[in-house]
Amino acid sequence: MLAERYPYYLANKPRQPNAELPVTDKYSGEVVTRVAVADAAAVEEAIAAAVRAAGPMRKLAPYERQEILEHCVRRFRERAEELALALCIEAGKPLRDARGEVTRLIETFKAAAEEAVRGGGEVLNLEVSKRTAGYRGFTQRVPVGPCSFITPFNFPLNLVAHKVAPAIAAGCPFVLKPSDRTPVSALLMAEVLAETALPEGAFSVLPTRLEDVGPFIEDDRLKLLSFTGSEKVGWDLKARSGRKKVVLELGGNAACVVDREPGESLDFIADRIAHGAFFQAGQSCISVQRVLVHEALYGELRERLVARARALRAGNPRDESTTLGPMIDEPAAKRLEGWIQQSVKRGAKVLAGGGRKGALLEATVLEGVPADEPLCAEEAFGPVVLLQSFRDFDEALRVVNDARYGLQAGLFTKDLSRAMRAWDELEVGGVVVGDVPSFRVDTMPYGGVKGSGLGREGVKYAMEDMTELRLLVMRQA
Amino acid sequence: MLAERYPYYLANKPRQPNAELPVTDKYSGEVVTRVAVADAAAVEEAIAAAVRAAGPMRKLAPYERQEILEHCVRRFRERAEELALALCIEAGKPLRDARGEVTRLIETFKAAAEEAVRGGGEVLNLEVSKRTAGYRGFTQRVPVGPCSFITPFNFPLNLVAHKVAPAIAAGCPFVLKPSDRTPVSALLMAEVLAETALPEGAFSVLPTRLEDVGPFIEDDRLKLLSFTGSEKVGWDLKARSGRKKVVLELGGNAACVVDREPGESLDFIADRIAHGAFFQAGQSCISVQRVLVHEALYGELRERLVARARALRAGNPRDESTTLGPMIDEPAAKRLEGWIQQSVKRGAKVLAGGGRKGALLEATVLEGVPADEPLCAEEAFGPVVLLQSFRDFDEALRVVNDARYGLQAGLFTKDLSRAMRAWDELEVGGVVVGDVPSFRVDTMPYGGVKGSGLGREGVKYAMEDMTELRLLVMRQA
Amino acid sequence: MLAERYPYYLANKPRQPNAELPVTDKYSGEVVTRVAVADAAAVEEAIAAAVRAAGPMRKLAPYERQEILEHCVRRFRERAEELALALCIEAGKPLRDARGEVTRLIETFKAAAEEAVRGGGEVLNLEVSKRTAGYRGFTQRVPVGPCSFITPFNFPLNLVAHKVAPAIAAGCPFVLKPSDRTPVSALLMAEVLAETALPEGAFSVLPTRLEDVGPFIEDDRLKLLSFTGSEKVGWDLKARSGRKKVVLELGGNAACVVDREPGESLDFIADRIAHGAFFQAGQSCISVQRVLVHEALYGELRERLVARARALRAGNPRDESTTLGPMIDEPAAKRLEGWIQQSVKRGAKVLAGGGRKGALLEATVLEGVPADEPLCAEEAFGPVVLLQSFRDFDEALRVVNDARYGLQAGLFTKDLSRAMRAWDELEVGGVVVGDVPSFRVDTMPYGGVKGSGLGREGVKYAMEDMTELRLLVMRQA
Amino acid sequence: MLAERYPYYLANKPRQPNAELPVTDKYSGEVVTRVAVADAAAVEEAIAAAVRAAGPMRKLAPYERQEILEHCVRRFRERAEELALALCIEAGKPLRDARGEVTRLIETFKAAAEEAVRGGGEVLNLEVSKRTAGYRGFTQRVPVGPCSFITPFNFPLNLVAHKVAPAIAAGCPFVLKPSDRTPVSALLMAEVLAETALPEGAFSVLPTRLEDVGPFIEDDRLKLLSFTGSEKVGWDLKARSGRKKVVLELGGNAACVVDREPGESLDFIADRIAHGAFFQAGQSCISVQRVLVHEALYGELRERLVARARALRAGNPRDESTTLGPMIDEPAAKRLEGWIQQSVKRGAKVLAGGGRKGALLEATVLEGVPADEPLCAEEAFGPVVLLQSFRDFDEALRVVNDARYGLQAGLFTKDLSRAMRAWDELEVGGVVVGDVPSFRVDTMPYGGVKGSGLGREGVKYAMEDMTELRLLVMRQA
Repeated sequence: MLAERYPYYLANKPRQPNAELPVTDKYSGEVVTRVAVADAAAVEEAIAAAVRAAGPMRKLAPYERQEILEHCVRRFRERAEELALALCIEAGKPLRDARGEVTRLIETFKAAAEEAVRGGGEVLNLEVSKRTAGYRGFTQRVPVGPCSFITPFNFPLNLVAHKVAPAIAAGCPFVLKPSDRTPVSALLMAEVLAETALPEGAFSVLPTRLEDVGPFIEDDRLKLLSFTGSEKVGWDLKARSGRKKVVLELGGNAACVVDREPGESLDFIADRIAHGAFFQAGQSCISVQRVLVHEALYGELRERLVARARALRAGNPRDESTTLGPMIDEPAAKRLEGWIQQSVKRGAKVLAGGGRKGALLEATVLEGVPADEPLCAEEAFGPVVLLQSFRDFDEALRVVNDARYGLQAGLFTKDLSRAMRAWDELEVGGVVVGDVPSFRVDTMPYGGVKGSGLGREGVKYAMEDMTELRLLVMRQA
Repeated sequence: MLAERYPYYLANKPRQPNAELPVTDKYSGEVVTRVAVADAAAVEEAIAAAVRAAGPMRKLAPYERQEILEHCVRRFRERAEELALALCIEAGKPLRDARGEVTRLIETFKAAAEEAVRGGGEVLNLEVSKRTAGYRGFTQRVPVGPCSFITPFNFPLNLVAHKVAPAIAAGCPFVLKPSDRTPVSALLMAEVLAETALPEGAFSVLPTRLEDVGPFIEDDRLKLLSFTGSEKVGWDLKARSGRKKVVLELGGNAACVVDREPGESLDFIADRIAHGAFFQAGQSCISVQRVLVHEALYGELRERLVARARALRAGNPRDESTTLGPMIDEPAAKRLEGWIQQSVKRGAKVLAGGGRKGALLEATVLEGVPADEPLCAEEAFGPVVLLQSFRDFDEALRVVNDARYGLQAGLFTKDLSRAMRAWDELEVGGVVVGDVPSFRVDTMPYGGVKGSGLGREGVKYAMEDMTELRLLVMRQA
Repeated sequence: MLAERYPYYLANKPRQPNAELPVTDKYSGEVVTRVAVADAAAVEEAIAAAVRAAGPMRKLAPYERQEILEHCVRRFRERAEELALALCIEAGKPLRDARGEVTRLIETFKAAAEEAVRGGGEVLNLEVSKRTAGYRGFTQRVPVGPCSFITPFNFPLNLVAHKVAPAIAAGCPFVLKPSDRTPVSALLMAEVLAETALPEGAFSVLPTRLEDVGPFIEDDRLKLLSFTGSEKVGWDLKARSGRKKVVLELGGNAACVVDREPGESLDFIADRIAHGAFFQAGQSCISVQRVLVHEALYGELRERLVARARALRAGNPRDESTTLGPMIDEPAAKRLEGWIQQSVKRGAKVLAGGGRKGALLEATVLEGVPADEPLCAEEAFGPVVLLQSFRDFDEALRVVNDARYGLQAGLFTKDLSRAMRAWDELEVGGVVVGDVPSFRVDTMPYGGVKGSGLGREGVKYAMEDMTELRLLVMRQA
Repeated sequence: MLAERYPYYLANKPRQPNAELPVTDKYSGEVVTRVAVADAAAVEEAIAAAVRAAGPMRKLAPYERQEILEHCVRRFRERAEELALALCIEAGKPLRDARGEVTRLIETFKAAAEEAVRGGGEVLNLEVSKRTAGYRGFTQRVPVGPCSFITPFNFPLNLVAHKVAPAIAAGCPFVLKPSDRTPVSALLMAEVLAETALPEGAFSVLPTRLEDVGPFIEDDRLKLLSFTGSEKVGWDLKARSGRKKVVLELGGNAACVVDREPGESLDFIADRIAHGAFFQAGQSCISVQRVLVHEALYGELRERLVARARALRAGNPRDESTTLGPMIDEPAAKRLEGWIQQSVKRGAKVLAGGGRKGALLEATVLEGVPADEPLCAEEAFGPVVLLQSFRDFDEALRVVNDARYGLQAGLFTKDLSRAMRAWDELEVGGVVVGDVPSFRVDTMPYGGVKGSGLGREGVKYAMEDMTELRLLVMRQA
């Protein structure tokens, strides 16, 4: 069970000046806890503390950073069930999914612990012409300094971890604003961070009202802004980000192509697509939204997908047998229901689902959705999947690319040459062959192109953004 | 001699719709040639052509990119004297310096030719936990697409080359706006590019009026904006850059520290500092502006520096014996003269130089300039160097870091431990031990922190910015 | 035409103490030139000179090594036709093949020129535990010192280049013993090397009698022995190599698998196999010797291969229309003819060829050759290819692996998963999907496992063997 | 306390067919336990099992290898005191040193656990010329197969770990022959390995009589021979190693140079040299044997070293206050005593120590030892250090290099340029600036040149030797 109230963490320490942010159980809609909210003064104090912590963080030896991260791994393992329950309540995530996220939280911190002692740089030959005889070069990566993190509600632990763990491994202090709908998970993480030897000021986790968020974005003492969230907000932040480096992990309308010879049984493929589309109510940036099926397989795969959508058990996420939980709130579910209805008006056909009860939208399968409908062209971010057939592979590639987004794409094919072509031609951050676009392992480079964002996360890749190359040239007499 | 008029290059082809941009000989001030100026329609046409060229550029095989770059190397070697003369005239650069820049132009293209066939990526183990058994990862770098380049007057060939050569090696088409004060060099480069097999639309070199420059910055069909120029302009561009990646190579007020045991003779050090400070009239981003000398050596080094400043021969850059040419124009020289006079009012002492004749400012050595004077705190970008003494090494590091800029720093020391400390603690892109901060070899990572910019150039590093990681995940049945 | 006599090169200089080694035209069998042979004293002198040259070679700056290699590239381009003719005469190689080898010679030197300025090493984090706080590590690769090279007759230029060019790029002097059947090509290369700034003693190219070869193998002043040649000799050398590092590029009986869905037309496949099997009379370490064809395609592919074998024009290699030249000498052709006849006695069937005229063996296709016959189990090293069918892919992998050798294997399949399995399971140095095992590009890692050798060549990889890691640890007070 | 008897491990399982190998307490000389000895049949059985295990080991997923290694880390932590005591007894190692070795054992396994999931390879551009358009390359490293390990008595845990842990991480089964004087530590490690999921046959730890050791060296089913031990044995093994890759970690007579401006206080330097020379009775491959001191510091440093040598407390290693334990046995101590006496006859002067009681040799400091005396030219491998002065730095470098060995060298200097020169010019595997040559962290590349061996250990580097590059070329239609 959750505590009655949660403090925020400012400069490594809990503070409970108020309990102004109500957090609801996303299934029942009831307020289950209240969280302290940082005001403008607190945000300023946190940033100032992070600036002071930049030197001490930089000077932490790699093995010290590793020890801090290993402490977190140990504690997350010990508190796994408690963390899963918090996710379940505040994010409405079915327990199985919640436990899966805790597993990945641990993997993310473990990967960062391993990476922390890797560091290193290059010894460069600079003697490329007579002019530079006697010079040699060395590089190291140094932390950029205080970072600003803004995180979303859909993975309240692991998407926070993807910023926090690399920051510690890289030696950067940070201020983090969690989603105001799911702040508890990040605060539980902060509890664990507070047990470590992180220098004072190294971290602040601050639920903050919109009107006080400005400095997270605009304050130039912060050297990096890493945001995960919606497309529109993301690009606006970039324009306001001043001199900061900016990493944006935005959304997508991920496509999955099932080629004529898909290399796997249709049952397997249907299982994976159903998982990719309906897992945590489709609220994942790489949820399967568009499925392109070769016409020869279309009917058979449609049948299987519809059956799987119908077999999902919607209900209370805390119930072990629930496989489909609510969306984050009723407005979100209504928004998506509206898109569905609007599509239907333009000729789309609902094959399964379509109904809504409060925040709980049924697992929905459609076909015939026009490409310019929001349901297809925008990020659905809910348990909805659209089917369409294609005749030849070139056409399928073209349809995948004909989107404003480009995060990941899935491709079921047994054909080597097509796999390579997809890798060469699909305008996305990652092509997943033999599985859905929803695949992610926390060490891989992850991130989108086009409307889906800028930069890559994944522990090692995030650390690259959080550090900068510093060259040493030595002239030898 | 220069031609009477020069066309611009739009989508690989010369066009001469007008000859509206007069280009002066920077020494005589006379208009020596006229250059075509692109209007808004031409800019739009160039961008549209670059968008169309993105596919063909991406598909150029590495060896084809190499052949194009090798052609350029051959032609620049053949036309070296002609290029040097153009630099000499339009940039007012003494012939020796101009020839040096041509040599580096060639080195930059040669490095890009070598890099073009390097490409590659990583094979990643993704099996970091049971969940991902059977998956493997591969990365490749793919071109980001059409790029926008804006370049300055101080190295009209080589700073253009640092954008153009990596773009070709990486497979990106581009539109480039050269400085309107020195457009000829870039247009001569375009002549050579037009001889190659670059796909249609791959490059445009367009002198453009300020009022028509907007699309270079704001058009989101361009995926990268790489700007070299002044601090103020640079950061403004970033705010207007939309969804583009942004690389900014801005200025600095580079410092050079001469420690008590400098590891070199004072004569050598004085030679290097004089070179670093007065080379092409100090108009280099890494010109030596601040010299911090250990008090035990201060008097002796000052004497040597003053002697060297006085020994420079100002005059017509085309004269082989000239070692100090004009600044880019009289307003620039007046601006810097004003800063000098303002410093003097606040107690600074001119040890050498200080006089001005038109755009020709004498090589000037000062001491006692207050730290908050523009002459110290801003980028001087002229033939001026400020001396100050220090008592201990910590103090010297502090003074170097106490600046808004952070491009490169020089350090003369024989002490291993101090060299390492400088590398660890100086907030700059590069620390040069045993030489002045003005050192650069075109393959090394180059770029600043703090006010000095974002990102790194140097052929391989620029190519990283011009490409993005694309992951392939394969699940093996 | 060849000269009447050729000197050997000792310590960079030509010497003609005798002309004792007759070199024949491999087609006519006539002696066409005579080459000087090094005696024991000359070998000793060369080694001593190489030892003295080790320091100067190590000290050559990277750009100096590059300039030397670029000189060679230029000169080989200028002398290409002459080199091709020498190959044609002394190796009996059809002109087209000879020109192909010269092209690759040039590519190998070009790759080495590019690699020469790459150098570099790593900056290592050593602070992995409290015990090592304050230490940091750096690596560089230093040349191992004088090398010993022994090269074969089948690529008298390019297999020499694969040792010589990396040695220059890496900074190692060397003594080289070319094949006594094809020494002229290596001596022409030496002529070009002698034009460069290589330090005295950096290279010796010494045709040497068997009884004087000992020091090439056993002298411990030589730090690396790199041998390309037959299996038996190779492993014997290793046992006699003393303290040297040893690289062995030995032979193989390369297999090519044609799967049920091969992903290419049978015509294309037959073209590639015919090329891979009969190219320069099959005298390549990666000549196609065993072809495993899925039973469904067996008949059709057999027919095509037989047709292609019959279509080859045997004859004088100097004739532009000749596509099949002689083997290196009559004993070699007789040896292989004997293997064929012995196979036939055990039930093998000759589908094409089988006849011999002097050193000229017809392009021969067989089926039904027992696996334990030398023709299958040993390296044929002649224009012979064996066909067999298989029923399932596992069986094909097993047959490929059931060999004493493991250099490269080819696989025609469109199936992604099988391509990955072949990569994971075939015990060879390289798996070529979509082509024959005979594919090689001179920059790729190349070399075998099992009986096929030790270590990898390919410019960068050879340089790794020719250098050793030298660590610098710095403790910072 | 040790058990009464220890089984050997054959194919992962303990076997106690006999207890024929008596193990003594190296301080008391009493037999304290007895260990089973493998006969020829057992060795053969172990090798056959390792061959069968090669496939399963190769197929272990990286995360499975990591789990096995993490299990070992946990168990070694739990059993640390017991392991330290075993070292103390069977190797005569003072408890503090023994605990230090256990700490490093853990670090070595931890590093291997981290490295196990790193794997990976390269994606190669092969399109370097028109001929290869359409080809791309990929590399992976695959395990070489069954390995043979022979380990020495001086670090009975950690030098075993340096072979075992990388083998597990790389996926190679192995047979290991520990020193017959210190077999217990390796068998305790085997106990822990037997608790893991290693496939049957993956490991055998077999104390073996000299007459049965042959197959460890000669059997060509074993693909790598990694030996740590004496120079003479090592090079003999190489000649007998058949087709195996060979890694030899042999000894040295490591030098430490103390330059005129050493950059540290003489007290610190004397502490480090005393530690490096007398740590575990000098029985380390990188024990300080030769100290070269600038003449200006010679007298002062000599005095300090003599004082430190005299301050060591010889005695029972189990006693917490003991700082100098016995050598491995009395013959070893007598051998070294003999060398000392022989040196004295030729004019050397004993400044401290020199006495012997059984296996216990006093910490001995000498000066004036002729360079050609075994005490200087051979590996002393005991608590002896030789002092000599030098006049200039060049001379010091020359003396260091004038040795048959080349493992590591230490250098105390504050001078950057000299540190770089030492890195460039000293013929050793590693140069340690600011500390003694005895420094090692278990992740760094470690190994010697000249007589000191072949190849590098250190987890990642050992894994490179235990794997081989396998290339995949894909031709895209």
